[in-house]
Amino acid sequence: MGKKLIYYFSQSKCDGNAEMKNLLGSKGANLAEMCNIGIPVPSGFTLCTQVCKMYYNNDKLPDNLCGEIKNFMAILEEDAGCKFGDPNHPLLVSVRSGSIDSMPGMLDTILNVGLNDETVIGLAKKSNERFAYDSYCRFITMYSNVVLQLNHYLFQDILDSARCKNNVESLVDLDVSTLKQIINDFKNIVYENTGKHFPQNINEQLLSSITAVFSSWKNERAVSYRRIHNISEDLGTAVNIQTMVFGNLNNNSATGVIFTRNPSTGEKKCFGEFLLNAQGEDIVSGFYTPLPINNNTMGKLMPEVYEELYIICKKLEEYYKEMQDIEFTVQDGKLWILQTRSGKRTPEANIRIVVDMVNEKMITKNNGILKVDPNTLNSLLHPIFDIQCDKQVIGVGLPASPGIASGYVVFNTYNAEKAVKQGKQVILVRSETSPEDINGMNIASGIMTARGGMTSHAAVVTRGMGKPCICSVNGLHIDKNEGFFVLGEVKINKDDPITINGNTGEVILGILPTILPELSQEFETIMQWVDEIKTIKVLANADTPKDVEIAKKFGAEGIGLCRTEHMFFAHDRINLIQKLIIADSQDERVNALEELEKMQKSDFKEIFSMMVDKEITVRLLDPPLHEFLPNNKQSIKKVANLLGRSIEDIRSKVEQLSEQNPMLGHRGCRIAISYPEIYRMQIRAILSTVYDLRNEKNIVVKPEIMIPFVISEKELILICEMAREEARNFNNVQYSIGTMIELPRAALIADKLAKHAEFFSFGTNDLTQTTMGLSRDDSVSFLDTYKQAGIFENDPFVVLDVEGVGELMKIAVTKGRKSCPELKIGICGEHGADPKSIGFFINLGLQYVSCSAYRVPIAKLVAAHIALNQGHSKFSELTTN
Amino acid sequence: MGKKLIYYFSQSKCDGNAEMKNLLGSKGANLAEMCNIGIPVPSGFTLCTQVCKMYYNNDKLPDNLCGEIKNFMAILEEDAGCKFGDPNHPLLVSVRSGSIDSMPGMLDTILNVGLNDETVIGLAKKSNERFAYDSYCRFITMYSNVVLQLNHYLFQDILDSARCKNNVESLVDLDVSTLKQIINDFKNIVYENTGKHFPQNINEQLLSSITAVFSSWKNERAVSYRRIHNISEDLGTAVNIQTMVFGNLNNNSATGVIFTRNPSTGEKKCFGEFLLNAQGEDIVSGFYTPLPINNNTMGKLMPEVYEELYIICKKLEEYYKEMQDIEFTVQDGKLWILQTRSGKRTPEANIRIVVDMVNEKMITKNNGILKVDPNTLNSLLHPIFDIQCDKQVIGVGLPASPGIASGYVVFNTYNAEKAVKQGKQVILVRSETSPEDINGMNIASGIMTARGGMTSHAAVVTRGMGKPCICSVNGLHIDKNEGFFVLGEVKINKDDPITINGNTGEVILGILPTILPELSQEFETIMQWVDEIKTIKVLANADTPKDVEIAKKFGAEGIGLCRTEHMFFAHDRINLIQKLIIADSQDERVNALEELEKMQKSDFKEIFSMMVDKEITVRLLDPPLHEFLPNNKQSIKKVANLLGRSIEDIRSKVEQLSEQNPMLGHRGCRIAISYPEIYRMQIRAILSTVYDLRNEKNIVVKPEIMIPFVISEKELILICEMAREEARNFNNVQYSIGTMIELPRAALIADKLAKHAEFFSFGTNDLTQTTMGLSRDDSVSFLDTYKQAGIFENDPFVVLDVEGVGELMKIAVTKGRKSCPELKIGICGEHGADPKSIGFFINLGLQYVSCSAYRVPIAKLVAAHIALNQGHSKFSELTTN
Repeated sequence: MGKKLIYYFSQSKCDGNAEMKNLLGSKGANLAEMCNIGIPVPSGFTLCTQVCKMYYNNDKLPDNLCGEIKNFMAILEEDAGCKFGDPNHPLLVSVRSGSIDSMPGMLDTILNVGLNDETVIGLAKKSNERFAYDSYCRFITMYSNVVLQLNHYLFQDILDSARCKNNVESLVDLDVSTLKQIINDFKNIVYENTGKHFPQNINEQLLSSITAVFSSWKNERAVSYRRIHNISEDLGTAVNIQTMVFGNLNNNSATGVIFTRNPSTGEKKCFGEFLLNAQGEDIVSGFYTPLPINNNTMGKLMPEVYEELYIICKKLEEYYKEMQDIEFTVQDGKLWILQTRSGKRTPEANIRIVVDMVNEKMITKNNGILKVDPNTLNSLLHPIFDIQCDKQVIGVGLPASPGIASGYVVFNTYNAEKAVKQGKQVILVRSETSPEDINGMNIASGIMTARGGMTSHAAVVTRGMGKPCICSVNGLHIDKNEGFFVLGEVKINKDDPITINGNTGEVILGILPTILPELSQEFETIMQWVDEIKTIKVLANADTPKDVEIAKKFGAEGIGLCRTEHMFFAHDRINLIQKLIIADSQDERVNALEELEKMQKSDFKEIFSMMVDKEITVRLLDPPLHEFLPNNKQSIKKVANLLGRSIEDIRSKVEQLSEQNPMLGHRGCRIAISYPEIYRMQIRAILSTVYDLRNEKNIVVKPEIMIPFVISEKELILICEMAREEARNFNNVQYSIGTMIELPRAALIADKLAKHAEFFSFGTNDLTQTTMGLSRDDSVSFLDTYKQAGIFENDPFVVLDVEGVGELMKIAVTKGRKSCPELKIGICGEHGADPKSIGFFINLGLQYVSCSAYRVPIAKLVAAHIALNQGHSKFSELTTN
Repeated sequence: MGKKLIYYFSQSKCDGNAEMKNLLGSKGANLAEMCNIGIPVPSGFTLCTQVCKMYYNNDKLPDNLCGEIKNFMAILEEDAGCKFGDPNHPLLVSVRSGSIDSMPGMLDTILNVGLNDETVIGLAKKSNERFAYDSYCRFITMYSNVVLQLNHYLFQDILDSARCKNNVESLVDLDVSTLKQIINDFKNIVYENTGKHFPQNINEQLLSSITAVFSSWKNERAVSYRRIHNISEDLGTAVNIQTMVFGNLNNNSATGVIFTRNPSTGEKKCFGEFLLNAQGEDIVSGFYTPLPINNNTMGKLMPEVYEELYIICKKLEEYYKEMQDIEFTVQDGKLWILQTRSGKRTPEANIRIVVDMVNEKMITKNNGILKVDPNTLNSLLHPIFDIQCDKQVIGVGLPASPGIASGYVVFNTYNAEKAVKQGKQVILVRSETSPEDINGMNIASGIMTARGGMTSHAAVVTRGMGKPCICSVNGLHIDKNEGFFVLGEVKINKDDPITINGNTGEVILGILPTILPELSQEFETIMQWVDEIKTIKVLANADTPKDVEIAKKFGAEGIGLCRTEHMFFAHDRINLIQKLIIADSQDERVNALEELEKMQKSDFKEIFSMMVDKEITVRLLDPPLHEFLPNNKQSIKKVANLLGRSIEDIRSKVEQLSEQNPMLGHRGCRIAISYPEIYRMQIRAILSTVYDLRNEKNIVVKPEIMIPFVISEKELILICEMAREEARNFNNVQYSIGTMIELPRAALIADKLAKHAEFFSFGTNDLTQTTMGLSRDDSVSFLDTYKQAGIFENDPFVVLDVEGVGELMKIAVTKGRKSCPELKIGICGEHGADPKSIGFFINLGLQYVSCSAYRVPIAKLVAAHIALNQGHSKFSELTTN
């Protein structure tokens, strides 16, 4: 096709820039951009993502690529002043992956390509022998692992025994003859396991490395990572071939990682780690514990580099207007930058960074809002552990990713998955994590490791996931058979509960109690900006006065769903509703109803008083009556005793009411048709509360009464009539009455329902279940299969199914508004706060979403994003068509 | 309003005619028409149905009505030559109900109005004393029961003891002084129970009687009857006031009923019964056993009347072109006709009558087709009892309504309802039935009575319902406490099984085995006419070779649904599918699948061979896998033994697969996504069968493979691809592939599905369940409440919900045809044969309906009706809007 497939970058000649991420990958584009703005970057060139696609389409690299690579290698050789494969002045290169979205540690990289038995001698002559053979060791290990697919433990074992024999801590401390012997051993391992000698042909090394890196796009952990992070399979990775610089050259060399702000707290202060005389993979491997970068460490050891690094940090952050995560290598006192990228950070840190940057005038308010991904807010909003409580700290480590998690100890992904399937939360405890652990880390509530620093694999990945992690826990020994761990004096078995505090590094015995989170000042600031921008109302679902308090705390603009049955489930009331259901005589029934009415009224009084001038929507009883009855022998006996009935009585009622498909059974307003007295009681409790509040306290509220599970106009007519009849007893009380749209039939006859309902509220949970014929509970067993088969892109109970359920919603909105243009329409299902779904709701013209109190800020933020992007936010991929 | 409310009829002056049924009621219109054509009818006048509506709207009769009635009474007096209330020449009248649709025995009638202590003396003088006081007795009883709402047993008891005391069989045999004493006793009863004297004011008698007859429109049994027969509540009844003629005047008087053809068999021969010296109510009450009308009875007793009656029968049948049911009274040798109406008959009889009348050129073929109500065919088509088998006949009675029924004995409506709710079939056994028993009769499979003739209440009602009945069973004695009955030597307890043969009158011990019915020649004739007329294809659902045979017998034009799972449920195969589900190893699974494939293939071979040149649609596995597993301890143990697995293994698999809402669970094509090997096996079995039949027997079939429970385009793509892959192994086999549309989402994305499916088949069962959020099983508990509340007009699982489900079907058809104009679309749910729903399907443009083989003729007949009426048959009230 003649399209350009390779892009060169160096201080003097640069084909790319930061805008070309789709072509060059994130790393390649940033390397080019850094060259453009004069940052010291080793020269190199990028095979663009097109090559990756061609590779996968044709099962091989493009025919002409080999020649092209040779041409670019020639330019590189000229730049570097040495030659690839030259026995005297050998050029070595790194072959690095570089995808469009950052996938830390998921794709492969090979360093020191170009070393063989000849060039190692030339390298040794040019520098020093220890360094040269150290590099050769590293190359063989990496190449064998990535290209030849040999297990890296094969090589680690040889190194470990060499270290043991020589009684040294690290590879650096081994002498040259030992290194040579190790290289020999390594080569034998390769021969034994592959039947071939380790390749001495440097061109074969280069091409095989490139191919292997492209192949790593489809390795298992990368595929998992993309699925977890919703990254498309089609993007592919670029490959960067870059002149090697050596952090392992001597003690005036180093390798390190630095963030331009603190990735845990957001504090405006560089934060990094480095290792002297080491190569990049050492720092993320977790095998070594690096030093923090500060005045006392790098500032003393290499003051000039330290100063230059800080200047570059400032320059890159200001240039990108983003907190940067920078990889660097110091080769014999000269600083080289190997990568810069937007730094992963905790949600708390991000909010602080955004507000700080707006205050620093680095970015605008609107840009600031767009820099907060609604998906990341979750962890800030949910109940947090009460760290003030009495607790037994049994150990301490590096606070590698903030947050607190309680859970049951597991030691590997397999057991993690097993426990999570049983509904348990788990803490994954490992010596160190590697990319193979990605699935276990994804489902664990927190991670604890015996080794690794603040930028180790475990630390980086968990920060990205927003979940707590403690690394390098002192004195943590894990049993070889993974039955327990010992920490100091304490032995903790598999499945024992522990808590980890990623903010302090503390390991705590048992499960901690939880309390509501305090929201930071910066969080409140962002939410104020959000309220100025967004166009849709965000209400909360709240069933009790306590819930309402939480909803108000989280900024809900009203209550869109107050489920009255949740009032019934309370400990002291469930027996009353049981009494009602079991009642044989009218007297018993009336008596139970009167008691329930009192209780409902007292709840309503409290709730309504808190919601003056705000919307409050009360939904009448929804679940089938059998949900209130006991479901096992013991509790049947208990209830029988309590109600003074025979066990047989209760059992027979339970049997009589049990259903084959309760989801499609006798529930919602169907109960009101069979037992009108229940809805009448609820309506009376609502209206008399309004009446009393006005007369006794001069508080005026106008509740909205919502009817669940409606499928016909007549149901609505009958219940509206009930309400009118009850209202006659309460002079001039104000209320409105509306219907849930949660069954396909309701959507299809929305024009008729709109003649009687003053509002519609979509119940997208039930609507999804019935539209797709998919039970929420039962679909768990095949949901994953469906996602893997590409049938479902998302769990339809999390992200709205726009094509099906959304189509019904469109029909309902169109028909409803046609029959009643001023109809108020909202949604109160779980999708109400789903970032991907809210855009659809806004485009559909809904006036409000109502969601769990904890998710109100998320919904608001998404709504603001959509307003800013005029309906095309990157977080609202779902649009009406 | 000045509208005419009263219509006069007599030989000389007649305001109405047969066309005016809506105004005059059926009886009134026919009385007028008979006057018009010179049939001897006693003069009278009709208060039209408008009066009834006014009565219910205003809770009283119209103000001016009283005066109007007086005017008409004056005309009547002139006609009759005597005066209402005249002590010497008193005019007596009957006050009869007369609704638009015949409701035999449901509404009230009062005879002999105008009798009091004075007029009875005048009447006695004019005729004879016994007759006059007999009439007065009857009048007080009827008036007290209907107007004063006194229980008729109060009066019956007095009569019974008088009969006992005087040792006579019948009222006719009591002497005058006894009758007078009885009248005294009757009056006392009235006074004791109402605190008022029996009214002597004849105008009060008349007006109260009229009011009471109007009121009877809303009595409980009439409301039930209308609900059962789908008669609108709003129609109201007319009231006929008519000069009395007296069948109880003397022994040259009589009362009777005659059908112009045999209502049980259709034979062209008058069929009737009469009672000498009796009034009309005697013959339908069941208290007396009347004589058949034939040469040896009436022909001998009153030969002139007999001849005239036969001439009138012929005249009326030819005039109405319908078999007539005629009431008559003979007063002192003079024949009077009191009513003619279309005669109720058995479905068999109707078909014979229709075919005969077409052959007699009395009606056209098309009219003939329209005279067969599809709803009545059911009883002709279902399996019948094998009366040739060994059986123990324990008694015999009058074969009052044909057909055979087996069931468990109940003695009242309450127990009938209880047993039917438990899924039992019941035989209702009573001394005689009365309108109060209507609900019990409606749900019983058959009725047996100790008393009453061929035109008794039980006989007439059961013939209308098309269910078997035996009356006047000799020697049947029912225990007072209704615990058992004794018949000859045999004692039968409540809940014991018996069989009644309404064709022969035999009562048989136990439940009879069943066989397929033989269809009459007349039936085949009608079906030929139907096939010439109808426009939609009618296919059958058939799962086994035996089913296919039945389907062909009943005229199915193909198989629209062959459920493969039914093949798995067969006794010798269920263990194979269980083995497949339980299998741990690939080997076990493959082995079980291979066995199943062999069995499916052998079934397909047989079925396909029977369906050459016809459509055959095979649906792949649909139910969730747990349906194949045992569900109780004992059967788990059995399966464990059989499969050589531990009980724990089976139990845990059962638990693992159990679902909260199986209807919305892991079923249909979802199983194929999780376990592709199952669908692959089924597809292979189908295609290899086609291949083998062609190669081995030169039989060419092109099966249609149908995928159940599809909700997404991708599912269909994946399964179509499976089929293509499998088809590669069978050179040039022909097949097509299509999808069920049984979930709302499928309907909503029909345009996308139509890109891959060659046909759609609506599964309206599941579509109804999900569209309405209504579980078929669980809705039973509140369906009746919903019907009574007017929310559901019909059970939506019987009659299609056009407003909701129909709307989705419209969407699917429109979208599907837009994307693929040649798309074949049909329906294979239970609604496929519902007379009310088929019209909707035809108007929707479906190419076929597929239903149970037994209902194929019904569906065909409905389709013919619709074709004849150009889409507006009276049996297809549902239309697209």
